[in-house]
Amino acid sequence: MIRMATIGTSTITRNFLDAATSVPEVSATTAYSRDPDRAAAFAAETGLAASVADLDALLSSSEIDAVYVASPNAIHGAQALQAIRYGKHVLVEKPAVPTVSEFVALTDAAAHHDVVVLEAMRNVHDPAMAALRALLPEIGMVRRASLAYCQRSARYDKVLAGERVNIFDPALAGGALYDLGVYTIAAMVELFGEPDRVTATTVPIAGGADGAGAALATFAGSVVDLSYSKITASDRRNEIQGELATITFEHVAQPRYATVTWHDGTRTEHTFDGPANNMVHEIRRFAALIAGDADPAVDTARTLAVLRTVESIRASAAHRPK
Amino acid sequence: MIRMATIGTSTITRNFLDAATSVPEVSATTAYSRDPDRAAAFAAETGLAASVADLDALLSSSEIDAVYVASPNAIHGAQALQAIRYGKHVLVEKPAVPTVSEFVALTDAAAHHDVVVLEAMRNVHDPAMAALRALLPEIGMVRRASLAYCQRSARYDKVLAGERVNIFDPALAGGALYDLGVYTIAAMVELFGEPDRVTATTVPIAGGADGAGAALATFAGSVVDLSYSKITASDRRNEIQGELATITFEHVAQPRYATVTWHDGTRTEHTFDGPANNMVHEIRRFAALIAGDADPAVDTARTLAVLRTVESIRASAAHRPK
Repeated sequence: MIRMATIGTSTITRNFLDAATSVPEVSATTAYSRDPDRAAAFAAETGLAASVADLDALLSSSEIDAVYVASPNAIHGAQALQAIRYGKHVLVEKPAVPTVSEFVALTDAAAHHDVVVLEAMRNVHDPAMAALRALLPEIGMVRRASLAYCQRSARYDKVLAGERVNIFDPALAGGALYDLGVYTIAAMVELFGEPDRVTATTVPIAGGADGAGAALATFAGSVVDLSYSKITASDRRNEIQGELATITFEHVAQPRYATVTWHDGTRTEHTFDGPANNMVHEIRRFAALIAGDADPAVDTARTLAVLRTVESIRASAAHRPK
Repeated sequence: MIRMATIGTSTITRNFLDAATSVPEVSATTAYSRDPDRAAAFAAETGLAASVADLDALLSSSEIDAVYVASPNAIHGAQALQAIRYGKHVLVEKPAVPTVSEFVALTDAAAHHDVVVLEAMRNVHDPAMAALRALLPEIGMVRRASLAYCQRSARYDKVLAGERVNIFDPALAGGALYDLGVYTIAAMVELFGEPDRVTATTVPIAGGADGAGAALATFAGSVVDLSYSKITASDRRNEIQGELATITFEHVAQPRYATVTWHDGTRTEHTFDGPANNMVHEIRRFAALIAGDADPAVDTARTLAVLRTVESIRASAAHRPK
């Protein structure tokens, strides 16, 4: 049994706890928040046995085997590193860290301390993604794909009102690319691999964060366009265009079904069964890695490919040719 | 009455003749093809009174006031220039020419000979595009848009079989950008103006043409992604994401209806009435320009903006950073 503590008390942590109940190898026992009242309230609400407000005390406890880190983006990398150094396994929310070098620091430390660090990129662990990948050989050479995650945050209204909001604060690794764009990048890497070249543009908003953006990823013989936004909305489907057929699917973070449209107009429908909360899959993967039943090199390579792409997008978007 | 001849005998010319019957100011009288049998057969099929296989004879005829040029892309620029020099008005299929400088040569010649030259970019003359533009102020600041035209050509099978096909021959200005991509560019320019910056990538196919491609166009505070393909298909809708609502619409070459989805989930539907064949609108514009009832500077500026964008896309797609 992997005894886990949670770091962070927002909705995503509740979703994690909900998903963890479906994974028998894991038992969540303790809530951490630097605010003791908040930690206690969160534990009471979610049925956790204990709460703690001292991170060192939490991490030095022999009652805890692993932590789930879902604090604000800007600090969970440091917390993950601290947990690793205490010999705890770490499941850390996406993006684990903003840069390649910071993730290398995490994996180096994890190797040194003989623990697992896994980025909680839920879509790549969802079997639906493997099912989508399995459809690719049927549709002929893939030439174009469009992956998108555009969802307007209610907190954008606060930005418009002149308030400072963490998820839109560039100093806290906020913004659309880190929050939603990374799902499209991870799906791309999982489906097609790492691109040869990336070019991008960004839509800055008040405060300096990227409210939205777009990137083109070039592969040998194909192009993938990525769209992401926290300030506008879309319900268009994702799309993979092959020379023989085109696949569309909904929800880049949790694909539910896909339609294959052949060039003669016929269609094939695919439904991806699974839990309503697809964080279950990443927790299973985390447990398998801790048990030594899976190869962490696959996960590390994927996260590094995603972060290299993130860095290329940021560099390209910052570049303004005269 | 504007007495017109047609240059080119493919489907688009039939569509032009069909549309021209709805424009009383225009009367199509004569079919030209360099092949006399083809010219005669085309005239007989379409009900044109005359056919001719000598272009100089056609253009020197006092019975002809204007020509519609729909020969292969690579030669209609030269034919248009020839017609202008004979004092004929010219409606020339898109793209009129592949480059800015060649279009400047056409407009300079047209000014010198006091005739009209108009690129037959049918979507920008369709009142549906103005209706879409009129919706923009309602949806808040536009932050992202996606415009696409991806339609697999049956002739791509010939390319795959190793044959040479005009519309996929780069030497003849074939390929996806010139054929379908220009519609997305023209719609973008008509809706949002000319972008500040363009970055692009291309999908080359056998023979060296671009079978598909994608571009990102950056404006102050927004980004437009363009998708085009002649080798794969899509039926996703075009999309304009504003901060208050998102517009989707079908058919970038002929918008038929649009849906505005507000952030509270409510939707407003808009239907754009009009002829099934929307080439009618460009022919009306052509007639109005000849009558002196419209300002050709608007059309010239739009075509030049589109061609500048085409050139930027080509330059960006050709650029491969190390």
